[in-house]
Amino acid sequence: MKALGPIPAGYEADNEGRLTIGGWNADVLVGEACGTPLFVYDSRRIADQVARFRAAFPSEVALHYAVKANPYAPLLEAMAAMVDGFDVASTGEMGRVAHLGLPISFAGPGKRDQELETAIRAGIAINLESEGEAERALAICKREKLTAKLAIRVNPPFGLKGSGQKMGGLPSQFGIDHDRAPALIRHIIGAGADWQGLHIFAGSQALQADALIDLQRETVALAASICEEASHAPPHVNLGGGFGIPYFAKDEPLDIETVGEALAKALSERLKILADTQFAIELGRWLVGEAGVYLARIVDRKESRGKTFLVTDGGLHHQLAASGNFGQLLRRNYPVAIASRFGAEPEEEVTITGCLCTPLDLLADEVMLPRAEVGDLVAIFCAGAYGLTASPTAFLSQPMAREMLV
Amino acid sequence: MKALGPIPAGYEADNEGRLTIGGWNADVLVGEACGTPLFVYDSRRIADQVARFRAAFPSEVALHYAVKANPYAPLLEAMAAMVDGFDVASTGEMGRVAHLGLPISFAGPGKRDQELETAIRAGIAINLESEGEAERALAICKREKLTAKLAIRVNPPFGLKGSGQKMGGLPSQFGIDHDRAPALIRHIIGAGADWQGLHIFAGSQALQADALIDLQRETVALAASICEEASHAPPHVNLGGGFGIPYFAKDEPLDIETVGEALAKALSERLKILADTQFAIELGRWLVGEAGVYLARIVDRKESRGKTFLVTDGGLHHQLAASGNFGQLLRRNYPVAIASRFGAEPEEEVTITGCLCTPLDLLADEVMLPRAEVGDLVAIFCAGAYGLTASPTAFLSQPMAREMLV
Repeated sequence: MKALGPIPAGYEADNEGRLTIGGWNADVLVGEACGTPLFVYDSRRIADQVARFRAAFPSEVALHYAVKANPYAPLLEAMAAMVDGFDVASTGEMGRVAHLGLPISFAGPGKRDQELETAIRAGIAINLESEGEAERALAICKREKLTAKLAIRVNPPFGLKGSGQKMGGLPSQFGIDHDRAPALIRHIIGAGADWQGLHIFAGSQALQADALIDLQRETVALAASICEEASHAPPHVNLGGGFGIPYFAKDEPLDIETVGEALAKALSERLKILADTQFAIELGRWLVGEAGVYLARIVDRKESRGKTFLVTDGGLHHQLAASGNFGQLLRRNYPVAIASRFGAEPEEEVTITGCLCTPLDLLADEVMLPRAEVGDLVAIFCAGAYGLTASPTAFLSQPMAREMLV
Repeated sequence: MKALGPIPAGYEADNEGRLTIGGWNADVLVGEACGTPLFVYDSRRIADQVARFRAAFPSEVALHYAVKANPYAPLLEAMAAMVDGFDVASTGEMGRVAHLGLPISFAGPGKRDQELETAIRAGIAINLESEGEAERALAICKREKLTAKLAIRVNPPFGLKGSGQKMGGLPSQFGIDHDRAPALIRHIIGAGADWQGLHIFAGSQALQADALIDLQRETVALAASICEEASHAPPHVNLGGGFGIPYFAKDEPLDIETVGEALAKALSERLKILADTQFAIELGRWLVGEAGVYLARIVDRKESRGKTFLVTDGGLHHQLAASGNFGQLLRRNYPVAIASRFGAEPEEEVTITGCLCTPLDLLADEVMLPRAEVGDLVAIFCAGAYGLTASPTAFLSQPMAREMLV
């Protein structure tokens, strides 16, 4: 038997024992969507996370949504009423939020000239990832007689301890090494750009409050020291994100209240050069991850050499990360349940697979669950971030998953 | 410095030192396709592999193409003139080859009732993955007054030694345990199905001839013993595939001539019950993998903490496997070259990334290559199989890759 990840708090069964999402039971939702596989996103859960963030962090810290976590259009529309800005990673993402009326910033290595020009014309802040990119943006401005909003993404000398994905303190394709940032600030301001400030993002999927507290303190201090050296006060400092959610057994939720309290203290003690700076935190996974559930239907139940398999109509083509094939060294089980018998006692050990003709397509390996039959729904939790768009949807020409915001 | 995988033999530079594919240099191909990122598939290389297979294997062994390896429409059309059948893993794939006039068989766990009915009506052979699936197919036949072409996929008691993906000898979602196969054969024949024979697929991506020779010998023997016990001679036996290609340093190409010779001998000694059986081998990766090259353009060249990064407009959203995130425990470098300076001496150590805003998006890590500049093309080889359709193309809303058959 292998452990399941923890089901996020607050998911409940109706009086027939069926999982409910946003007040609707899973069968009704699948009926409304005209079938499985289906991603359901609960807007109330997203709003609750936003409210929790607002209560925990000082009001001088803006909340941005990282569109890459989930770019489903109805979710973006709902999000626009709740956050202060969108962070995008491509002009494709830009197009998904441009009509929503919030400030946008654009980060990511490998921005093509056409993308830079599109962003400059749209008045979107570009987080520069290298001196070369700065030159290309400035050349476009000169040629087209435009003024660009440019921020500098900094590769800090420290990383996020215990981060799922370390992104600082190392050589990196992201950002400009911190010791070269002051010169670049002076250069772009000298060239006439509308300097927006700094973007410092050092890791993601952190569950340890202490690690985030240290990181944010170091980030504020680094921003101050870079700007003092450049002799320019930054209008904005994006402190990055990195707030994780529990996916696997023994993962504990992040205590954001403690993080918020520590950041308030760090900001109250900040150097004078940051006095008028607008700070932002950029969150994706933490806002939407636990709000999403992936529902697939059991198509076959079979025994093989003493093991029971539940074969579903879903799979890694929609939920690559749950199969263990996206940035994980060792496969571990996501939180999974039989939606039709939610909360019932575990009765048997089963392995749940998708419908793909590859042994990689494993959704839950050797887990204890209530007895399930063909036709029952399987729920995979923590499916709200990096789900459908982070999966190979065209693999084996299987049908696309449906999505729904409730 | 880390090693690069071996570039497949036969790729050459033109007299300006540019990589050519199918006789065209990479710049011309990108021009024809109107841009990068671009997958180019070389039809001549595919034809050469087919010819090599035909020469190596006895004529009584049919060659099937596994559509899931690469379902690009022009490639399927070209393939239809070269192989004897298509193996599909969904009704989506079925629709891609239905008009091409070759026999089709349909394998894969989790076939929905609607898919079974579609296949039965189209006269396509269904490889049954479980007793439950057999019952569902027979029930459809009874209800709709149809006769189904049914084969049985067998989960053998042995696996492919040294296989990249072991698929036999273990509990599995694929096929019916071999000891239960005879009863199921008798059952479906008794229920009036048009029994097609057996499908025995025990692994993939094998580079050791010995391992495949043993596997094929065991597979022929298992097919005979199952059919003797069932007292029915099988019209067809699909021996599976599993032929690998070298991706990584120290990988050696599979010696298929030795495999073919051994299979000829095994077939010449086969038991009488298989005397009139049509055998087939099902290949995907081995036929098309080395025929494909993924071309991306360098958008940025940057230094960070002493390391040089080449940032391209491609990435794991098109070539997930090359990033090390699809079924690999340890990331190793695929064969990669600077297309504009193909065959030139390595001059510097670089890390090549895609354009995605994630540290997972690594195409070549710390490799020695000729000096490359912004605007140069990077070529990633072994991109013909499990490339675009096995990658999260919607990730970060980046543009779709182009594809071209030359």
